Amino acid sequence: MSETHTSDETDARDQLLAIAEQFYDQFADGDIPRMSLPTRSKSNIEYDEDADVWVYGDSQSTRSANSVRGARKLLKSVYTVDFLAQQLDEGRSSTLRELYYLSESWDEAEAQFNDQSESDKLVEDLEIVSGVKREDFHMRPEESGAKVMGPLRLREQTRRGDREIHCQEDVGQGGYQIPNNPDTIDFLDTDADFVLCVETGGMRDRLVENGFDDDYNAIVVHLGGQPARATRRLTKRLHDELDLPVTVFTDGDPWSYRIYGSVAYGSIKSAHLSEYLATPQAQFIGIRPQDIVDYDLPTDPLSDSDVNALESELEDPRFQSDFWTEQIGLQLDIDKKAEQQALASRGLDFVTDTYLPERLAEMGVL
Amino acid sequence: MSETHTSDETDARDQLLAIAEQFYDQFADGDIPRMSLPTRSKSNIEYDEDADVWVYGDSQSTRSANSVRGARKLLKSVYTVDFLAQQLDEGRSSTLRELYYLSESWDEAEAQFNDQSESDKLVEDLEIVSGVKREDFHMRPEESGAKVMGPLRLREQTRRGDREIHCQEDVGQGGYQIPNNPDTIDFLDTDADFVLCVETGGMRDRLVENGFDDDYNAIVVHLGGQPARATRRLTKRLHDELDLPVTVFTDGDPWSYRIYGSVAYGSIKSAHLSEYLATPQAQFIGIRPQDIVDYDLPTDPLSDSDVNALESELEDPRFQSDFWTEQIGLQLDIDKKAEQQALASRGLDFVTDTYLPERLAEMGVL
Repeated sequence: MSETHTSDETDARDQLLAIAEQFYDQFADGDIPRMSLPTRSKSNIEYDEDADVWVYGDSQSTRSANSVRGARKLLKSVYTVDFLAQQLDEGRSSTLRELYYLSESWDEAEAQFNDQSESDKLVEDLEIVSGVKREDFHMRPEESGAKVMGPLRLREQTRRGDREIHCQEDVGQGGYQIPNNPDTIDFLDTDADFVLCVETGGMRDRLVENGFDDDYNAIVVHLGGQPARATRRLTKRLHDELDLPVTVFTDGDPWSYRIYGSVAYGSIKSAHLSEYLATPQAQFIGIRPQDIVDYDLPTDPLSDSDVNALESELEDPRFQSDFWTEQIGLQLDIDKKAEQQALASRGLDFVTDTYLPERLAEMGVL
Repeated sequence: MSETHTSDETDARDQLLAIAEQFYDQFADGDIPRMSLPTRSKSNIEYDEDADVWVYGDSQSTRSANSVRGARKLLKSVYTVDFLAQQLDEGRSSTLRELYYLSESWDEAEAQFNDQSESDKLVEDLEIVSGVKREDFHMRPEESGAKVMGPLRLREQTRRGDREIHCQEDVGQGGYQIPNNPDTIDFLDTDADFVLCVETGGMRDRLVENGFDDDYNAIVVHLGGQPARATRRLTKRLHDELDLPVTVFTDGDPWSYRIYGSVAYGSIKSAHLSEYLATPQAQFIGIRPQDIVDYDLPTDPLSDSDVNALESELEDPRFQSDFWTEQIGLQLDIDKKAEQQALASRGLDFVTDTYLPERLAEMGVL
């Protein structure tokens, strides 16, 4: 178990303790302790022109100890800060779910969480108030799930020492597994020309089997549905540090557009982390509703919830471009959706020989 | 793309073509073409005393071309056999979902599948009739998802050449990703004393962070919920070829007992593959209902569907031992379930310092 502390960890600990000190000072000054947070709703998300991502607006909510409910929230915050500071001291980490269960061992019953959504939300609150990311508190998600294949050599700091790994030559067919905190990775060198994020495992395996990463110098990142924070962070770093264009390849339905949206613009839930997680330059490479028409793909009809989701995307600030307005309008017209593996209806090589090269050329990536 | 054929692949192709030849011979003899299959239901599962796994019994169903529906089924079988034989010829592979979509490109509309469950089931039928595993047809699932960490050095044959990987020294914190077909792996050497299969990602990360694999010479296999075939196959091979005891560590609820059951005894859906996938010697290491009582773990009440699932397990041939009858009875009594991460309520190290070592000693594994 490593006991070395990086400066990020020391910062994180200081920022956390500053929250507790603030309560202390409020007490000392005879004030009722309180904590202010941006209001976390769609109406309080704004576009940040400089950073090119969606962030919280100016609307604030305050938690104050002037009610029993508010006081209990602050008590839980203090216990959580204490636990996190100790965890950082010891160079350890834990999962969000462990934090919830661990609270059962706290001596003050009022500080214990009622369910995991409460502790998850509190950790997000602490991220917002402290300006420190959950990863720097050493709080892990349940799973990352995503994996990378492509011409990239990296060094990962693990608890057992550094590992140098080439994401084609040193890994099996399954690729390199992204760790929970991808900031333990340094990129050493790459021959890649671009990044292709892929929604489904089946399509990821198709690209790897067809040697797409080799033939087109692509870093293929498997998203595995709604991408974990670790996957989004790694994608952003590949873009920012290696100056690689990022493309996102998903199914052609409203839920997949949200997957693209969370890679490119961040999500409401994590708008405070957009600058850390979002890659605004990420381009959507399909499946577009236009592809359903052009390639006559096998489709399913839209369900009621698909239609509702598309209509809500028409209102979503992240989907206000001409491209999305047009494509979503077209999809509602044709009343159809298609999966990315539906391209197999034109043969197993169509996606790597025709579809992706054509789209990448159109988009100026190739 | 490799064009070399292993003997497994040649066998698979021959076995597949034998199915088509059988139809041909039936035609030539003036018989109505037909195909017989074991009936795939719970009532037709039996315990194989020799192999120590559950397999199909003697009850058979016949598909015959004497009805339009039966004829269409056989037509689809022939088209699928043709596709699979060609795929093996070309040294390629595809996913179950791709097969479904690909059927849209077949010239005979009657041979196309109506939905993916139809093509999935047909591939299972072909496995049963031919005695060849789906992996040897080169049909991949959508995702494997599972990963391995422990003192094991292996060689994986990939499409880009062989890779030698030590599952601690050559991998990041995320571990070694099991490929879709783990029979491409050769085990080179190991210092492991046993295998610990873990249901959740959070617990897997806890064990790895605490260095459990190092301290106890354990190969930690992440199941990721209901384990993929690749994960079950690898677990069985670790047991059979390296002579390692296998333990399965899950949540304490009926769904998790089924996860254990699928590792140990196989499932109804894949009873024809029990000898290939099941590890009857696998031992359940908890969470037991008895642990909920002994350790006073944080719990949730059983839902109606939990109770139904437990009651159906009391009838399930796989759960007829004294251990399971007693534990399931106790769980229905206390009306509670607990997750494996609930052990964190006794501290983050309780699971690795106390719970697992005590249970492993009781079970005779340590």
